[in-house]
Formats: sequence, C-alpha cells, structure tokens
Amino acid sequence: MALDHTNRRAAIVGTGLIGGSIGMALRAQGWVVTGIDADEARARRAVELGAVDTVGIDPSVDVTFIAAPVEAIPALARRALAETSGAVTDVGSVKASVVTAVSDPRFVGGHPMAGSEQLGVDGADPGLVEGAVWVLTPVDSTDSRAYALVRSVVATLGAEVLALPPQRHDALVAVVSHVPHLTAAALMGLAATGAEEHTTLLRLAAGGFRDMTRVAAGSPAIWPDICAQNRVAIVDVIDTLLAALQDLRGVVDRADREALLETLGRAQAARLNLPSRVAQPGAMAEVRVPVPDRPGSLAEVTTLATDLGVNIADLEIAHSTEGDRGVLLMLVEVDQAEAFRRALSDRGYRPSIQGLA
Amino acid sequence: MALDHTNRRAAIVGTGLIGGSIGMALRAQGWVVTGIDADEARARRAVELGAVDTVGIDPSVDVTFIAAPVEAIPALARRALAETSGAVTDVGSVKASVVTAVSDPRFVGGHPMAGSEQLGVDGADPGLVEGAVWVLTPVDSTDSRAYALVRSVVATLGAEVLALPPQRHDALVAVVSHVPHLTAAALMGLAATGAEEHTTLLRLAAGGFRDMTRVAAGSPAIWPDICAQNRVAIVDVIDTLLAALQDLRGVVDRADREALLETLGRAQAARLNLPSRVAQPGAMAEVRVPVPDRPGSLAEVTTLATDLGVNIADLEIAHSTEGDRGVLLMLVEVDQAEAFRRALSDRGYRPSIQGLA
Repeated sequence: MALDHTNRRAAIVGTGLIGGSIGMALRAQGWVVTGIDADEARARRAVELGAVDTVGIDPSVDVTFIAAPVEAIPALARRALAETSGAVTDVGSVKASVVTAVSDPRFVGGHPMAGSEQLGVDGADPGLVEGAVWVLTPVDSTDSRAYALVRSVVATLGAEVLALPPQRHDALVAVVSHVPHLTAAALMGLAATGAEEHTTLLRLAAGGFRDMTRVAAGSPAIWPDICAQNRVAIVDVIDTLLAALQDLRGVVDRADREALLETLGRAQAARLNLPSRVAQPGAMAEVRVPVPDRPGSLAEVTTLATDLGVNIADLEIAHSTEGDRGVLLMLVEVDQAEAFRRALSDRGYRPSIQGLA
Repeated sequence: MALDHTNRRAAIVGTGLIGGSIGMALRAQGWVVTGIDADEARARRAVELGAVDTVGIDPSVDVTFIAAPVEAIPALARRALAETSGAVTDVGSVKASVVTAVSDPRFVGGHPMAGSEQLGVDGADPGLVEGAVWVLTPVDSTDSRAYALVRSVVATLGAEVLALPPQRHDALVAVVSHVPHLTAAALMGLAATGAEEHTTLLRLAAGGFRDMTRVAAGSPAIWPDICAQNRVAIVDVIDTLLAALQDLRGVVDRADREALLETLGRAQAARLNLPSRVAQPGAMAEVRVPVPDRPGSLAEVTTLATDLGVNIADLEIAHSTEGDRGVLLMLVEVDQAEAFRRALSDRGYRPSIQGLA
C-alpha cells in the first residue's frame, strides 16, 4: 500500500534546520532532492551537508516543502505552485492565514511539531521529525491526490500525521506552544530585576524553574511573525490564562485548601495523561470508505480520525476512472477500527473493515 | 579548618526523602544518626535502608534536622530544642513564619533546594543535596556557634550554602518556585478541556509544553501548607506576573514587533545567564573579620556574601574567651576576596585577606 519512493523528486524551499532535515531524510530513502534558499550560501551549505543534491528547483518535482518563516510562506508557495506541477506543502507554525492566502487545491498546509525554523542547516538531522507529530490541514478544496501524496511522504519520514482544520490547529498550538512561550518569558522577566537580587535569585533557581523557562532561551526572531499571524487565538488563550491565574490568586489569598487541591489535582491528572509518544505496535486493520461526490470529505474523514484519537498509519486513495469519486483505504490499529467505522457511519459514510494478517 | 565530624551525632525528625537522604549522607561520613517520624513504620524503614542507625532521639546530638511538612516544623523544632542541647535546623520551603514561630538562638532556618518533602524514604539518596543550593536564614538573635555548626555540616554534604534573611528567601522562592508551580498548573488546566479536544491537544504537546508543565505532575498535597505560609509573597508575585502577561497581551494584540522583541530578548538574556551549577575550582583566600560586639553581624556578613555572589566555601568562628566577640574566618575564591573585603569595610568591619597555598 505504501507509495514507491524510488526515483521520486522533491524540492526544499528554505534549507535551514527543518528544510535540511527533511531533505536528508528524503535522500536517505532514495529521493532526488533539489533546494533553494533566500540565502544562497545556506543553499550551497545544504549541498555540502548532503541535505539536498543540487541548488535549484526541478519543475517536475512530485512535492515541494516550503520551510521558510511564516510570513514568507504564501508567496513562496504560490511561486512553487506556478513553477512545478506537484503538490506543495509547508512547515509553518501557523496555518489558517497561510492556507487562506495560498488557496490552491495542490497546496496542503503542514506543521511538523519538532525543531524550530530559526536554526541553521548545520543542525539538520535526518531523524528530526521521526516520532514527532506532523499536522496536516486539508480543507474542502484540497485535491485528494495532493493530500494523499504529502501524507504518505510525511508518514514515511516516521512522523505521526494528524489532520486538523487550519483554524483548530492554530487555536491548539496557541495553547500548547505560543502562550506557554510567552509565559516562560514573563516568568523569566520576574527574575530579571536588579543586579544583586538577580544574581541571588538565579542561584536559587532549581529544576522546576529551569524547566519552565528553558524555551525563553530561544531567539526572539521568529515570534513577531507567529504572534502577528496567530494574534486572535493567542490573545484569546492569554485571556483564559489570566482568568485562571486570577482565580488561583484568590484561592491563595483566602487560603482555600480545598479549591487549591482541586485545581492542582486536575492539573496533575492532565499532566500524567500526556501521551509519552512511545508508539504501541499492534495488529492493524484496513478501513475502507467510499468517498462520496461531495467536497471536503477527505478533510472530514481524516480530521474525524484525529478527534477520535485514531492513528492513521497509512492512507491511500483508490480512484475510480470517472473523476473525483474513489475509495479511501486507511490503515489503523485493530482495536480502534470499529469505533472509527461506527463514527464514519454516523456521519453518512459506508465504511467497511478488512482485517490484515 | 573543617570540623572533625568523627563520632558526631545527629538526629533526623521526619525520615522521608530529604530527612532520609541527609541521614544517609551523614552516616557515610561517620556520623551516628538517630531518627523519628510521625509514622513509626517509616522510621523503621529508614533504619532498614541505612538512613538512620536507630529509631529515637539522642539528647546529646550536635544537630537535629527537622524534615517535616512546613506546618509541623515549629512544634517539632521547639520539642527538639527542649529535648536536646545541640543546634536545630529545618528543611522547610518557607522560612519567615518558621523562624518567627520558633524564635530560639539555637535554631537556624534552612531550605535545601533539592527533592521534595512529599516523597518517601525509599527514594532517599545520600547524593541528593550534593551540588544543590542550601539556603540558611540566620537572624540577629542566631547563636553564632549554632550557625557555624549547621553551616559546616551542610557544606560537608556538598551543598552550596547561601545565607539570606528569612523574608527575602520567601520572596525569592515565590518567584523561582511557588508561582512557577501554580503557573504550570494553570497552563495544564488550559489543556484539560473537553475529552476530544483534550486528546488532540495533548498529542500536539511537544517538548516546550512538556518542560513547562512537568512540575504539575507532582502531588498537590504539600501546596496548601506552602501557599498558606507564604501567602503574602505568592500573591504579590502573581500580581507581578499578571501585569507582565497583561502587558504581553497588549503587545500581541497591537502587533507591536519592537516591544515583543525587547521583552523576549530580555528574557532570553536572563535565561542564558542562569548559572549552570558547575563548580569552578579555583585558588582560595581566607577573609578574616573581627566580629564586633553587636547583634546580627554574623547574619549581616554572610548575607552580604550572598548579595555579592561570593561563595563561602568554609566558615569558622574563632571565639575569644570573653563571650560573643570573635573572628570570622571565611574561605572564598581568590578573585572574589578583594570585592568582599571592600564591601565589608564599607559596612564598618575591619576585614583582612590571607592568601592560601
């Protein structure tokens, strides 16, 4: 069911840490990879490091990865769509603004939750995204062949693919990434006071404080773009956090033991629930879904899997000869297959399950 | 200059993780250690694990460590002061309320910034406090012999001793420990929403979020006491954090790139400044200070060292025969000695420096 990657061709636009890592991983699997960067020296360095084969863009590539700062992505994506015939995807950490700005069936928004756009190609590592979550944001107008191709390539790199609507992705990363980052900076700011006080305070900072402020050591350079592109969601989550802290302030001020234990207990339970990312190898089943002739069904089916916590290990679209109708073939774990099938039925699909040896 | 620890006797009141670890470390250096615990089975377990020699309190111990929950410390410390003739110290994470409640010259408040009171003796480790910062909070009324003894014992365990006034300790730990903990719980609370959303969100949580919420996985049990005892400082720091987050909210909302870069840049610089705790072995010098006949000079001299970032590797008090007058002998790094001497002179002391081979 996996695609044959031999002699496939990919392009990397932006050969920094993430772009370079993707290039290395693809080349390790036999892909021919070309690449460009706004900084020509960096593109040449990517060739030296084995991240890309040659500098440039091959017009006949199957897929192009745009690995540039968020603000630069729409223009670079449109250029790649104009100059190549393949699918185009990106690795930006904000999705709704990018997907809306590009608005092309061959463009599939993406966000590997690993590494950082800000670091150089010298830190590139073919294993960077292995085991990481890689969000893809198909929408109603997304071409199913383009989505299936991007999805397959990303899964081949060892990432766990999660399909989400772009707006929902943005709201979620505001919670798990953007606002935590701003909070780390605010906490670090509390410690950055006068010189004497500062020295003493930092000597007192033990493991918890170090953990909580680690991300604040990163370069600020990428944050103005991210905050501008995801402004609404970030402001909304900060408001929720302000309310939660205000509430805790009241709990401490009136020494409300019960309320404090309840809040901390809820947080403890949630933290202990954080998935550990260790893949559970198990028996797999194939869920087959005829894709009806209405727009957006691919996005609907794959984001439904995300909501149910169903991991689609592989996905293929068997197209009928007459246009857009076809059958979605999805590989999922045996014990998740029935719940997925039922949820699909509830939404008007006619899925079937095929056990695999 | 180091004290002779052979055949010295210590007592541990509260043989949990920290008390047990201290007992093990002392026994490894030839101390005879007795111990008690409100939970008798835990005291017996401490004997089995080699954390203490026998259950009980030897009235002739040189020093007693109170390693119990913060609220229980004053009563246990007063009992140890009544039943033994030695110095008494504690390991509670809040100091002003404890020091005020005990109010005895032989009591020296303490707080090793390592481990946690909540865990059992089975996790005890003689190396737990090695390399950690151990705050001591001498006050004007503190007996200099008691302080010097506690200081010496703690330094022998490999901890870096930092002298601070109790109130200042409490304000600083509110910044580096208590409020970060509450903030981690608040951040984790943002992620603990409805079931479907929750599952997806936690799959997106990458390294930064994991780092920032790690402490929220701890048991809530110790926090009502800590928050009650350090209420004023915690509320004060939460207010500062709320103001900082409110400010960042405004910066994001109006897409103020410059202000965002400035705030994040300041936090980055402060975070990169966090001392790494790697001891720099260097040549040492001895600073000698005649201690005049006024109360509080010991506390003043040692907290001054803390403020200057001067690490006192060893400290001894050479007493004259007539009462409280004496000479403080402090071992510090050669390149810190002159600044320390000058600061002491500015405050009316008459220090001298003695180079060491």
